[in-house]
Amino acid sequence: MTGTMRALRKMKRGPGLEMMEIPIPRAKNGEVLIKVRKRAICGTDLHIYKWDEWSQNRLNPPVTIGHEFYGEIVETGGDVRHYQPGETVTAEMHVACHQCFQCRTGNPHLCENVIILGVDGDGCFADYLTVPESNLWRVPPEIDPDFASIYDPFGNAVHTVMSGATVGKSFLILGAGPIGLAAIPVAKAAGASMVVVTEILEYRRELARRMGADRVIDPSREDTAAIVLQLTKGHGVDVVLEMSGHPAALDQGFKSIRKNGRYSLLGIPSRPVTIDFASQIIFKGIQIQGINGRRMFDTWFQMDALLVSGKVDLKPLITHRFKLENFKDAFETGLSGNAGKILLE
Amino acid sequence: MTGTMRALRKMKRGPGLEMMEIPIPRAKNGEVLIKVRKRAICGTDLHIYKWDEWSQNRLNPPVTIGHEFYGEIVETGGDVRHYQPGETVTAEMHVACHQCFQCRTGNPHLCENVIILGVDGDGCFADYLTVPESNLWRVPPEIDPDFASIYDPFGNAVHTVMSGATVGKSFLILGAGPIGLAAIPVAKAAGASMVVVTEILEYRRELARRMGADRVIDPSREDTAAIVLQLTKGHGVDVVLEMSGHPAALDQGFKSIRKNGRYSLLGIPSRPVTIDFASQIIFKGIQIQGINGRRMFDTWFQMDALLVSGKVDLKPLITHRFKLENFKDAFETGLSGNAGKILLE
Amino acid sequence: MTGTMRALRKMKRGPGLEMMEIPIPRAKNGEVLIKVRKRAICGTDLHIYKWDEWSQNRLNPPVTIGHEFYGEIVETGGDVRHYQPGETVTAEMHVACHQCFQCRTGNPHLCENVIILGVDGDGCFADYLTVPESNLWRVPPEIDPDFASIYDPFGNAVHTVMSGATVGKSFLILGAGPIGLAAIPVAKAAGASMVVVTEILEYRRELARRMGADRVIDPSREDTAAIVLQLTKGHGVDVVLEMSGHPAALDQGFKSIRKNGRYSLLGIPSRPVTIDFASQIIFKGIQIQGINGRRMFDTWFQMDALLVSGKVDLKPLITHRFKLENFKDAFETGLSGNAGKILLE
Amino acid sequence: MTGTMRALRKMKRGPGLEMMEIPIPRAKNGEVLIKVRKRAICGTDLHIYKWDEWSQNRLNPPVTIGHEFYGEIVETGGDVRHYQPGETVTAEMHVACHQCFQCRTGNPHLCENVIILGVDGDGCFADYLTVPESNLWRVPPEIDPDFASIYDPFGNAVHTVMSGATVGKSFLILGAGPIGLAAIPVAKAAGASMVVVTEILEYRRELARRMGADRVIDPSREDTAAIVLQLTKGHGVDVVLEMSGHPAALDQGFKSIRKNGRYSLLGIPSRPVTIDFASQIIFKGIQIQGINGRRMFDTWFQMDALLVSGKVDLKPLITHRFKLENFKDAFETGLSGNAGKILLE
Repeated sequence: MTGTMRALRKMKRGPGLEMMEIPIPRAKNGEVLIKVRKRAICGTDLHIYKWDEWSQNRLNPPVTIGHEFYGEIVETGGDVRHYQPGETVTAEMHVACHQCFQCRTGNPHLCENVIILGVDGDGCFADYLTVPESNLWRVPPEIDPDFASIYDPFGNAVHTVMSGATVGKSFLILGAGPIGLAAIPVAKAAGASMVVVTEILEYRRELARRMGADRVIDPSREDTAAIVLQLTKGHGVDVVLEMSGHPAALDQGFKSIRKNGRYSLLGIPSRPVTIDFASQIIFKGIQIQGINGRRMFDTWFQMDALLVSGKVDLKPLITHRFKLENFKDAFETGLSGNAGKILLE
Repeated sequence: MTGTMRALRKMKRGPGLEMMEIPIPRAKNGEVLIKVRKRAICGTDLHIYKWDEWSQNRLNPPVTIGHEFYGEIVETGGDVRHYQPGETVTAEMHVACHQCFQCRTGNPHLCENVIILGVDGDGCFADYLTVPESNLWRVPPEIDPDFASIYDPFGNAVHTVMSGATVGKSFLILGAGPIGLAAIPVAKAAGASMVVVTEILEYRRELARRMGADRVIDPSREDTAAIVLQLTKGHGVDVVLEMSGHPAALDQGFKSIRKNGRYSLLGIPSRPVTIDFASQIIFKGIQIQGINGRRMFDTWFQMDALLVSGKVDLKPLITHRFKLENFKDAFETGLSGNAGKILLE
Repeated sequence: MTGTMRALRKMKRGPGLEMMEIPIPRAKNGEVLIKVRKRAICGTDLHIYKWDEWSQNRLNPPVTIGHEFYGEIVETGGDVRHYQPGETVTAEMHVACHQCFQCRTGNPHLCENVIILGVDGDGCFADYLTVPESNLWRVPPEIDPDFASIYDPFGNAVHTVMSGATVGKSFLILGAGPIGLAAIPVAKAAGASMVVVTEILEYRRELARRMGADRVIDPSREDTAAIVLQLTKGHGVDVVLEMSGHPAALDQGFKSIRKNGRYSLLGIPSRPVTIDFASQIIFKGIQIQGINGRRMFDTWFQMDALLVSGKVDLKPLITHRFKLENFKDAFETGLSGNAGKILLE
Repeated sequence: MTGTMRALRKMKRGPGLEMMEIPIPRAKNGEVLIKVRKRAICGTDLHIYKWDEWSQNRLNPPVTIGHEFYGEIVETGGDVRHYQPGETVTAEMHVACHQCFQCRTGNPHLCENVIILGVDGDGCFADYLTVPESNLWRVPPEIDPDFASIYDPFGNAVHTVMSGATVGKSFLILGAGPIGLAAIPVAKAAGASMVVVTEILEYRRELARRMGADRVIDPSREDTAAIVLQLTKGHGVDVVLEMSGHPAALDQGFKSIRKNGRYSLLGIPSRPVTIDFASQIIFKGIQIQGINGRRMFDTWFQMDALLVSGKVDLKPLITHRFKLENFKDAFETGLSGNAGKILLE
């Protein structure tokens, strides 16, 4: 495969992105070349577009961004053994080193030397991309390609929900961004007895209801902890999933969790938070977990099973579609907050 | 509370049961007296009625049998602190010693000195019975009293399903007696991606379908392992629940389970079974679990959560109702096998 | 058993304690009367003696304090089934309700209605005390009565160490008070590959060395995190046990822990602490646990096994002995910090 | 690296092995070439030498056998990123596919497409061998090369011991072959309160004593279950490790295990065994595990930690050393049973 292709790239240190024509990459040893059919915008892509503090510290332009996609293998490099051209795939874009302690003990999602395609290396907001064979995920025909293109955030949701007991447990999800929204049907499919969601934006609260939340709270007008305690006969919820990164939400979680509960943290607070360890953690005997990425590939098998069995439907989550060339409109829509997942087709 | 009451009792070593008029028992220290409203017949009761080998070794007549019920507290003995007359309850009828190693390490369902009311002491097939406070389970008003009367076998099903990972897992349930049947909606509520059931009797296969099984196999005419392997792309199921106690079913389970799978054994085989440990257990790397009773009271909280949230419906499981005085018809119906749960009201 | 006995009591809201002559209590239903042979002073007793803020909020004088002891049963109340006069015992002094969610799901150490003898009810700093049968722990003859008298803090140490994987793991223990000190040999017996301890006081650092610490750090002069990272080839320790309650120590723990590590919190910080959740918890993927008390009675079986097998020796931990009447000297020694465990005999 | 080397090979379908001169292999992409310094004989090698039924079904001559070694990297193939010539290594000789369900969910030791070097491909009983980079294990200088050469069976022992709770648990090890012997100090380092071992051969019973067993039983003259029950106050041991593959030993294990105990099976019974599932598994509520290989590479990190910390010493286990050319004497010694590990240097 030779010739050129379109690629949405960060070319210099500053806001914005440029659509460019660049050579189609070659699949090196152990890699495949994929023709991208669908892409989805992640919050990380919005950070890169805006060039926030995190992006300034992490990115080294030029780089093609994007790490959520669905596509078709068009070429395989040397030593590729398990995939053929023509197969439809998505991929885990965290490329682990396979040699550090975390990688060698079943936790490559915590790899100490991880490279993220679309952040540290060229990603999928292009017509083609290359991915190592060990990162590919075959998409079975029963699965809607729309859903396959968002396995990255869907996987965040599944991994967070599944990081402890779920059956018969009551859940509080703080924040109804795309991952928080995806976590709603996942928690219910995983046996949750009740799912309560908090969200500031009405657009997203409405999505939360459509995704199956039992109760949606507007924390700007309602008292989250008071409502949760009332719904749980004064005990608090069994599980809190923090998916907003907002310090005030974090605090509501501590006030809403029951003794011995699980508090899983995925959202990234932008600043330090002050916590009363004695009353909020120790006397309550709770467990706090820092959550990263998705398990490779336990989470991916779970995603397939949840979708193929029909236990989870992600349809309401996908709210917008743009052509790749109209990326500016897509990114501005994402920045407004009035969106679920936005696809670039 | 004084006076007499009806009680269905085993009076001598031999088949059958007698309905008698005996004094209403008194609630001793730490006990409550319960007026029984609903009772259900367990397979154990049928064994006692028939006076099989197990019964001959275990029972010391005279004793009132029955250990599944729903009722109302009418009197509390001394030192009862948490319950009042008028409350509706059911109970765990395994009375644990609270002092052996199992009891003191969170496993009273494996108590080394257990006494079972309805087997070792007087049970619930009477108008009244006494139960220690620590064995009571308060029935919330949202729960159908029919369902509350079968928490014992429902708990067997929940405990067996929940003895390992469930979400996104494929299940094979061997035997569609009442516990196998109850396990079907429990597995699905707990996130099972597929539930396959085997059963010899057509009556029960039909119940299995109504309880939500994805595929029901008649092992007398179909090849269980072949069907399971086909449904699972050649891998086998993730979880096998043995609920028939039949040696042939046990063997089908070993042939149908995937590498690293979970094989939970609840049914009691009536004779020793020959197993090829090398190919069926070791090379496959499977886990086998002997399952007893229900967890006190983790399982009971799970039962409440599954019913109150509407995730499990046990309606199709209750197929017959008799008056207590018509116990002979009820027991004969149970012995025919053409029944789900039989209530005595 | 009638007559009077000595008891060390808090008689009014304020500092200090009074030694008084009061009637020997009677063993009520389900209780036993114990003649106390050895007692040990806990940090909690020092707080009560000083009448700090926690004591002011919790205690309702008059009350006999003390909750660590070894003694002999001299009388049994009604309904006591498993113990006889003449048996030597110690006891779990957290009296759980046996009916709340935590109690009924195997976590009575997190009971929502707990009463602590020696804090909320009369304790063991007397010649006799009464304890419910369900809280007793029989002391086998192989166990040194000195050690039996400190099962409460020894149990804190064992429970904290055992709240996650231990074999082949490196440990950092923050604070070498009695519980931190006891945790050193426990971690080693449980397979720890290395145990590093931090402690401000030289007296206790010396005890830490005698208890078997591989490296003892003075955080007032040395850089804990730098030393830990050097000892662990830059990765950090697998497990941090916070046993000081000091905010600075908490922070050192976050800096010294490896990705995916376990951070178990037992020490009670006296004020809120500011934490960077993003870098210290989420990106590192760590697990934080609030730890309370001891498991009833998993921890107690573990204590017996560790002592009877000779894998743990607590001898260096017991540094002082006083007669009960010389309690003032004992408490002042405790307040100085230059002590391990102090016995009152 | 060109030229020829010695290799101990199975050349035709039948008993025996031949020492031959063959070309030194080349390190392909992703592989390294290793100069072997030490090798050890496994029971599997003895089976191949004797050409037993298993060998007849599995081997396709010609093939160089041997899968336990210590050596030095002398050449690296293309795409090798983490290793350099001159490094001392051993290796996991189970080459997993990295793409099947087991491989992709953290269980490559249960790979559905595994190739074992020294069985299915050329192994280490030669002067040189090639191994994929992903299977290498760097040997730190603190570790005795003798021990590094037996990480394969040592890993079997560690993996089996560590497949459940260990601290404060009593162990029964059935069979004192090399893996059973290695399991003794591992169990003790992992916190076992007692280790009982059964073994028919006096030579190996003596080794078991030297490895630290608390009690060694000759099952040909003593009643294993009776002794175990006496040592455990009638309860049975917490953990049974079956490492003999003998049906009689399997049965002793079932009789010696406590309620709720763990029964880990590593030894391969040569014929089916008849088990009373009711009394031996279900009523006792035990867990049975089929164990394979070693975890990649959790077990390997544990091995390093146990050796570097000095918690495990394998010295007594290595009883014989031969030169590679004297392989016949070495194999005959192995077949006699009067040996621990036999090195070929």
